[in-house]
Amino acid sequence: MDRDDYLKRLRRIEGQVRGLQRMVETDEYCVDILTQIASVTKALQGVGLGLLDEHFRHCVMEAAKADGSEGDAKVHEAMAAVERLLRT
Amino acid sequence: MDRDDYLKRLRRIEGQVRGLQRMVETDEYCVDILTQIASVTKALQGVGLGLLDEHFRHCVMEAAKADGSEGDAKVHEAMAAVERLLRT
Amino acid sequence: MDRDDYLKRLRRIEGQVRGLQRMVETDEYCVDILTQIASVTKALQGVGLGLLDEHFRHCVMEAAKADGSEGDAKVHEAMAAVERLLRT
Amino acid sequence: MDRDDYLKRLRRIEGQVRGLQRMVETDEYCVDILTQIASVTKALQGVGLGLLDEHFRHCVMEAAKADGSEGDAKVHEAMAAVERLLRT
Repeated sequence: MDRDDYLKRLRRIEGQVRGLQRMVETDEYCVDILTQIASVTKALQGVGLGLLDEHFRHCVMEAAKADGSEGDAKVHEAMAAVERLLRT
Repeated sequence: MDRDDYLKRLRRIEGQVRGLQRMVETDEYCVDILTQIASVTKALQGVGLGLLDEHFRHCVMEAAKADGSEGDAKVHEAMAAVERLLRT
Repeated sequence: MDRDDYLKRLRRIEGQVRGLQRMVETDEYCVDILTQIASVTKALQGVGLGLLDEHFRHCVMEAAKADGSEGDAKVHEAMAAVERLLRT
Repeated sequence: MDRDDYLKRLRRIEGQVRGLQRMVETDEYCVDILTQIASVTKALQGVGLGLLDEHFRHCVMEAAKADGSEGDAKVHEAMAAVERLLRT
């Protein structure tokens, strides 16, 4: 995992969440706040998709090469994570 | 808008995003990070849905009472915000 | 509501779902089926967003003009529908 | 792939889409139509998640065992499909 890249993105997201607090404090227009919320959500999902991609390429694949049934279990586990992302 | 409630939720979300940074720094298991990302996303969308509800009850309704075509324009604007939330 | 437009879109969606059945029957490549599922989902949400827009402009607004608290109740009901769309 | 199971689910979805057409034709209450749209969307995503799970366990794993870089390419391709599902 390129940990530094993920950290940089998460720090930017933290800054965006603080920006949302300022928008609420200064009574900015609701629709502008909603647009910003959609943008933060998209950034978070981008991090999630990146992590998933790596998770499949490393953990899941390694498990699958070592042991087929362990690989299947890892895929099911990862798919449950996809479903949680999808259901939000 | 109950501004204090939104601020409290956004500060908790900020804390969760910092928690995500720590999870990445300490190499926690990908699937656990993804579960946490789904939880932060859901919290953000909860704030968004709350803001939307108020936006409809106040801004949009006021506009609609004052002037029907202005009300229609406000609804279209708010629906575009719903679509941005939905498409993330 | 422009009922004929919605019916036309829903008939096209029905055709797309039958297309998905054919893709499954002829063992088409999974990723292509998934792409098509995303496209059908998007079409369905488009119908949903259109209906919501009209629902706000008509039912909700009418209720709000007649009686503020009835208008609030309608907004909450519609927001619950938005949340169900968002959570899928 | 348990093709028959997917076909059965897709036929039920086709029936639900026809049900939506009847709801529109008989002017049913918008919020009820929206609830039904959320339910059809969820059923479609269930089919998508099932297909993805199998795709990872079969196509992607086979590719990965045969050739690491081919496995990586398959993961990226599948993640792009996840992203399309997520963005709808």
